[in-house]
Formats: sequence, structure tokens, C-alpha cells
Amino acid sequence: MDQRLSLVTLAVRDLERSHQFYITGLGWQAELYVPHEVLMIRVGAHTLLSLWSEVEFEAEVGAIARGEGAPPITLAHNVASAEEVDEILTLAARIGAGNIAPGQQRSWGGYSGYFADPDGYRWEIAMNPGPIGESLLP
Amino acid sequence: MDQRLSLVTLAVRDLERSHQFYITGLGWQAELYVPHEVLMIRVGAHTLLSLWSEVEFEAEVGAIARGEGAPPITLAHNVASAEEVDEILTLAARIGAGNIAPGQQRSWGGYSGYFADPDGYRWEIAMNPGPIGESLLP
Repeated sequence: MDQRLSLVTLAVRDLERSHQFYITGLGWQAELYVPHEVLMIRVGAHTLLSLWSEVEFEAEVGAIARGEGAPPITLAHNVASAEEVDEILTLAARIGAGNIAPGQQRSWGGYSGYFADPDGYRWEIAMNPGPIGESLLP
Repeated sequence: MDQRLSLVTLAVRDLERSHQFYITGLGWQAELYVPHEVLMIRVGAHTLLSLWSEVEFEAEVGAIARGEGAPPITLAHNVASAEEVDEILTLAARIGAGNIAPGQQRSWGGYSGYFADPDGYRWEIAMNPGPIGESLLP
């Protein structure tokens, strides 16, 4: 099995609200949008983010663990400077993102902050000055 | 904010067990491994999978929602044929993956099945014959 990730699928409660956030709010382009079912967004040359109706997700994958708190995953979007981190967090606040954690210096040498999408999925906006971080930039 | 995904981070309970599964079991290469802290694996030209100790994840992101059931996300690995789907699911079973859902025809025209990593994160192994599916192959 090659080490390749093709899609990241997130179960979402209200797909129209996700569409409002990612497409109208962030200004991203939909690769595929089937209302009430699925919204796919290209996030890499061979990678898609797929927002899938929770009802359909559970019918195929099984019941989702529920409870108070954050999902056990985060999605990171790396940028080249701390200023860009702050700009994106400001944009996220303006379009109604929740759980905004302002940018701060991190022990690993970078600078990052978080916001949450309508289902609580955290995006980490990060500047990572090391070689691994640089390898993630376009 | 460009539509780019740099890292997918999964909170894991026992990082050594994750290392055993992904590195020893699947034979993947570590980009970075700090025992008890983090294991990073390259899964795209500008994309990493990061397995992060749950304790550290919660200290930075906040408490994780807990409960019976599957995590609310899946990771997909697309391949070119149904035979490859079956081969990878057989490999996953051999290295001790859980929650194996055998390959089956899907309503969207493809063929896919699932396995779970040691923390229950589902990998969907998929053959998707449409243009979107083809765009995900290397």
C-alpha cells in the first residue's frame, strides 16, 4: 500500500451550512456539490476534502462516537508567515468561524492558531519555518 | 485563504502502536518520529499525515469528544482497480487492522472497502472510475 492520501471525508450535520462556510465564506471552489449529500473541494494536486452528510456517512461507515468536545482530528493549512496566519484567522472570525484560538508562538519553532468550521472541525493555520514546514508550501 | 490542506492530524492513544501499524505493518516511511509525541508520514507532494499523542493534542486543541462509535472522518486511498482494493484489505487484515468492511460495489459507480487503524480511524480503499476518481491517482 503506497503512502498516499486521496480524500479526507468529514461527516457534517448540515451540508448547506458547510457549503455556506467553505464556498461562500472562504471563497473556495466546489469540485462536486450534490445538495444534502456531498460537497467535494480540491485541496491538493491529487487530494480532495469531502464533506459528507452525516446520515449517509453513518449508513456506510457506522455510528459516529458522540460527546462533548472537539473532533479527534485537525486539518492544517500552512502559510509562509505569521502575518498570513493572523490574516486568515481574522477572515475566519469575519465569516463566523467558532473556537478561534489566536496565533501564538509554538514550542516547535513556528506560529499557529485555530478556527472551527460549522461542525467543530479545527483548522490549524500554521507557519512552520523548518524544512518539513517548507516542504508543505506550494 | 487558498484551498490547500497541508497536514491531517489524528489524535492517537498509543503512538508506539501507531508506529507499529503504519511503519512496521504497512511498510510506510516516517518523515519524523518522536517517540511518545508525534509520527509524521508523507502522503502527498505537499501533504503529511501526523499522528499526535492524544495527551498533547488535548493540551493544545481541547478535550476530545468521546463515546462509542467511529471517528467522524475517514481517510481514502484510491487505487486503479477493484483487485488492488481487495489486495490492500487482505494486507490490512494480515497486519491486524480492525473493522474490516470487504470491498463492494458502490452506488456512485466504484468499488471500495474499509479497515481501521489502531485508534479506529477508517481508511477507505477505493476504486473510483469517474473523472474525479482518476484525478486522485498519481
